[in-house]
Amino acid sequence: MPRLVGIDLGGTSIRAALATGPTSYAERVVRRFTPAWAGPSAVIAACAAAARDAAGGTPDGVAIGIPGPLDPESGVVFAAPHLPGFEDLPARDMLSEAAGCPVAIHNDSNLAGYAEWAAGMGRRARTFVFVIVGTGIGGAVIIDGTLLVGTAGTAAEVGHVPWSPDGPSCGQGHVGCLEGVASGTGIARRAAVALAAGEASQLREVRPLTASAIADAARAGDALARRIYDDAARALGRSFGALVNILGPDAIAIGGGIGSNVDLLEAPIRAAMAEIAFETPLRRCRLGQAELGSDAGLVGAVAWAVRTFDRDPGPAPAART
Amino acid sequence: MPRLVGIDLGGTSIRAALATGPTSYAERVVRRFTPAWAGPSAVIAACAAAARDAAGGTPDGVAIGIPGPLDPESGVVFAAPHLPGFEDLPARDMLSEAAGCPVAIHNDSNLAGYAEWAAGMGRRARTFVFVIVGTGIGGAVIIDGTLLVGTAGTAAEVGHVPWSPDGPSCGQGHVGCLEGVASGTGIARRAAVALAAGEASQLREVRPLTASAIADAARAGDALARRIYDDAARALGRSFGALVNILGPDAIAIGGGIGSNVDLLEAPIRAAMAEIAFETPLRRCRLGQAELGSDAGLVGAVAWAVRTFDRDPGPAPAART
Repeated sequence: MPRLVGIDLGGTSIRAALATGPTSYAERVVRRFTPAWAGPSAVIAACAAAARDAAGGTPDGVAIGIPGPLDPESGVVFAAPHLPGFEDLPARDMLSEAAGCPVAIHNDSNLAGYAEWAAGMGRRARTFVFVIVGTGIGGAVIIDGTLLVGTAGTAAEVGHVPWSPDGPSCGQGHVGCLEGVASGTGIARRAAVALAAGEASQLREVRPLTASAIADAARAGDALARRIYDDAARALGRSFGALVNILGPDAIAIGGGIGSNVDLLEAPIRAAMAEIAFETPLRRCRLGQAELGSDAGLVGAVAWAVRTFDRDPGPAPAART
Repeated sequence: MPRLVGIDLGGTSIRAALATGPTSYAERVVRRFTPAWAGPSAVIAACAAAARDAAGGTPDGVAIGIPGPLDPESGVVFAAPHLPGFEDLPARDMLSEAAGCPVAIHNDSNLAGYAEWAAGMGRRARTFVFVIVGTGIGGAVIIDGTLLVGTAGTAAEVGHVPWSPDGPSCGQGHVGCLEGVASGTGIARRAAVALAAGEASQLREVRPLTASAIADAARAGDALARRIYDDAARALGRSFGALVNILGPDAIAIGGGIGSNVDLLEAPIRAAMAEIAFETPLRRCRLGQAELGSDAGLVGAVAWAVRTFDRDPGPAPAART
């Protein structure tokens, strides 16, 4: 097997690992801080060093997941909120030159979703949707084994769909979209707005006012916290209902920190899906938690490196169980 | 070329034509009334007779567009609101037996969208979305030449996506969905509700209160009519924005009677798309009127017959201009 490396690039850390199979990697994972403050060239150099370290020399190919909208075909990153200077950046060619080998870039949520399809909750699904609900909301759509990328490489932005024309805007300025009400940022902001408006709640004593703390308050019976999570769940469920109607997936996997609050979210998500989705495709769609957790990004990058650069990858991941 | 027939089955009429090329048909189009009241067997028999008439004998293959959710793989129609008795009906096998040849069935909006991709506004688009806004709202999604059908065969139901959690329900009971506010039925219903609530409007004098009459009133400056069309346009635009984010289409084509009100709808649709869509994929997505009009259903059925049953169909439609 060629020496293929997957890299999960985040705003604070870089993880790199050597592929040992279609969706597996060597035990030793290289970890480095992301020198985000030092600009793109320094970040790319750190990624190249991590790749060489993981491969024990020059790799034969690298796939990297990057947290922002990008075009995998042209290799250009349009923007990356947590990586200053990653704007219209030819990241693929820069990393290829620095690492001395061919490189493939992809959106990090897309690769995490690919991992869930290849080795996680979505195994063998013909049409699979992955939704990661954390600070923001991202996702991936895989149809017949192909990651949907669209005309600009940015498809599967499932967090930016209509919730309500009167709803709050998300951090990226979309008016009344899902992310504004169901992301960690959106949940915290809604609580802050309600408290500033004088609403009674035990959240008034909470510092810092995080989505996680609000979830705890909802569990403890706080009415405001409960309403905010109910709205988040209903918004997620209605959006999932739309995905069922548009794509007809076999499975939808929810991941991310917010998405893991199964006790608060699952029942109202299912109820809200039925508000929007047609009965037959809804019945045929499994809904469940993503299985790979924070490992999904690295598994996805490794799997993508193998898929892209290994000429004899063995049986397709979809055939594995 | 084998004798391949396309059929456009509607609630009131059947049209059938013989294919003369990948997206063209013979000048003589067979038309019959749909004996909907007489039940499925009579409707299927009428379709078979029309197919034989169009082919001048037993056809070598038939493709038929049916107005309702169905599974093209199993050949079963789940429901067809305007065709009583079409419930869990094995329509493909019934028509195949009646016509004496292999048959393919598909949703009529899907085939109309396929026609727009093969020979209309979406020519050569890699990812194409067709939205037909008439009495209801339907559509089609074509990715790399393949009609998206999903796990139940019912994908591309782009009319049933969230508008507002407080919005009216559509005719199929989906709470606050696009169809409830932007379809012909939804537009007429909203006007009736506002008038019943006592709102001042010149619509009070209008009989019958159709979406078309409301469009005329909007053009004449009636505030209620204008607001109803503005809401419809904003709902369509926000939904199109979601499609841009999820699918990244090269082109979105709008068809149907309501969709043809370009003067009322186009500007607010474009403005609302920008509320939701990311800039890069939005810039790369053409938006325009469907080109084939009421011919799309028959062109699509013919094209689907050729694609399904002609072993030597020549160059793919996508390569044609």
